[in-house]
Amino acid sequence: MGLPQTVSFDETNRTLVIIDQTLLPNKLELLHLSNLEDICDAIRTLKVRGAPAIGVAAAIGLYCVCSRFETDLEDVFIEKTKETAEIINSTRPTAKNLSWALQKMLKVVDSNTSQGTDNIKNAMKKCALQILEEDVTVCKAIGEYGAALINNGDCIMTVCNAGALAAVKYGTALAPIYSASESGKSVSVYSLETRPLLQGARLTSFELTENGIDTTLICDNMAASVMASGKIKAVFTGCDRVAANGDAANKIGTLMLAILAKHYNIPFYICAPYSTIDFETRSGNEIVIEERNDEEIRSLWYKQPMVTDKAKIYNPAFDVTPAELITAFITEKGIKKPKQL
Amino acid sequence: MGLPQTVSFDETNRTLVIIDQTLLPNKLELLHLSNLEDICDAIRTLKVRGAPAIGVAAAIGLYCVCSRFETDLEDVFIEKTKETAEIINSTRPTAKNLSWALQKMLKVVDSNTSQGTDNIKNAMKKCALQILEEDVTVCKAIGEYGAALINNGDCIMTVCNAGALAAVKYGTALAPIYSASESGKSVSVYSLETRPLLQGARLTSFELTENGIDTTLICDNMAASVMASGKIKAVFTGCDRVAANGDAANKIGTLMLAILAKHYNIPFYICAPYSTIDFETRSGNEIVIEERNDEEIRSLWYKQPMVTDKAKIYNPAFDVTPAELITAFITEKGIKKPKQL
Repeated sequence: MGLPQTVSFDETNRTLVIIDQTLLPNKLELLHLSNLEDICDAIRTLKVRGAPAIGVAAAIGLYCVCSRFETDLEDVFIEKTKETAEIINSTRPTAKNLSWALQKMLKVVDSNTSQGTDNIKNAMKKCALQILEEDVTVCKAIGEYGAALINNGDCIMTVCNAGALAAVKYGTALAPIYSASESGKSVSVYSLETRPLLQGARLTSFELTENGIDTTLICDNMAASVMASGKIKAVFTGCDRVAANGDAANKIGTLMLAILAKHYNIPFYICAPYSTIDFETRSGNEIVIEERNDEEIRSLWYKQPMVTDKAKIYNPAFDVTPAELITAFITEKGIKKPKQL
Repeated sequence: MGLPQTVSFDETNRTLVIIDQTLLPNKLELLHLSNLEDICDAIRTLKVRGAPAIGVAAAIGLYCVCSRFETDLEDVFIEKTKETAEIINSTRPTAKNLSWALQKMLKVVDSNTSQGTDNIKNAMKKCALQILEEDVTVCKAIGEYGAALINNGDCIMTVCNAGALAAVKYGTALAPIYSASESGKSVSVYSLETRPLLQGARLTSFELTENGIDTTLICDNMAASVMASGKIKAVFTGCDRVAANGDAANKIGTLMLAILAKHYNIPFYICAPYSTIDFETRSGNEIVIEERNDEEIRSLWYKQPMVTDKAKIYNPAFDVTPAELITAFITEKGIKKPKQL
């Protein structure tokens, strides 16, 4: 893997270190963050994004902020820590991993009360680093299970970025591609550009080609045409939240790919760690879909607005793919049918 | 209809007059064209676009160029006219109407030989104006037939621009919407932005809202999500070429919409004049799909390139929707099942 780690912890400076993904593919820059405002801004403005990566960033970020609290009073420390976690948790609503990671951190705080704030801080650091390391091993496992589904010469379609840049390294949907490639299989990828934020254009095409994978970028509306040509052997996507019934919320456009894949009899796989599964949400209908700013569609990236002010804009960041359209989930515990989760 | 006519003929100056669609929605500017290079450039660079509009523009353009030939020798005039028609015809490969209009013009030339070049020129002018007027009446008829399929309160989805800006006026896919609205029905539209050239964002949203139609713009990858919500009552699209078996080539993304519409049991209509039907092409497999420049996806509109140079790009401008996914064609001769064409 030729790129720096997407999310890491700088022990010396006690900072959260991330690749600023808003600058890719034109500039590779690392940000060192330690205050709450900067960390929330980084998550909200997608400097760090991707369900696994924001979970890890939130955990390390929470530690970096709270370890700087100067009080020795445990009650005060714990209250401020919980407030901080809540603020970080509110930055983005859809991805499960964000609240999963923060809850894990708060549990550690709770189980270390009466140990003194220094000990709580140490326990939080240990937990954050564990979440980070776990992400690496989980993604590696997803990659190995998924690679078994890829044959030599296969061409895979993916949307958005569920790669190394969406996790600590390896990623989820791209992990099987890296793993298959490392084991000597020839794999190529069709990457959907993923409007409006262009994660497929800016990020997936970048990280795949930096890692030597043959990549063709298409617009989102070209997926059907490429599938119709018979080139695509499987669709691999990531996931932001899986409901208990196997419905899966992921980047807008995933539902389209699932329906098209069904039409063309192409297997449709969602790659996700178990931390993405929300057993408390019964079905996809209950998943909150984040609606983002009109300007992302109207004028972001452009030299001038591309839409008349008189037109309304609808900008959902995610959609929900019903379980029956999902061939299987590729998880760190193996390949599971929606009902086997 | 609140906008100037998309394509017209300025008799005094003997010029082809078009709205420069590359400047919309930010600037409404009319271009007067009379030389071959400018006319071809206007078609090639999509200053005028949409299957019906480029047919009309080609016919008027051919007249404007050829009427300036100063020879009295009929043979020389006819040869130069045929050469000119061939050059205009080569500007874009997929739309049937371009060659249909030029062939109609050349037929008129052939049937007026031995009448002297002035008479041939007059006959060409008459034919070009007839093609223009026919487009208006044909689109009006498509609008009236299509409006019968729209109920009060319906919400329609469309892709690209097959509206007034794609024809002389009214358009094809948007004609039923205008007609239904004029007859007092409340109609709203979801317009797909249509990457990479953004005709849905720049043109459809512009002309619909200028004409008072409630319009919501979405990215192409949001169509499935909006359909899943139950809002959409029908999909209306235009068409560039219909094969004899009813397969239809239209803007990239149309095939996606047809498959999604089938999945959600939403009727999928293609609006097209009979001049779009190519009875010599047996099926969609034989239709030549124009592949356009990588830069349209990589960097057009943007402040900076959005894709690494290391990634390949595939940029088909059209796709082919198989006849079995098309509920019906709305033509100037009525509503026809694919097999009834």
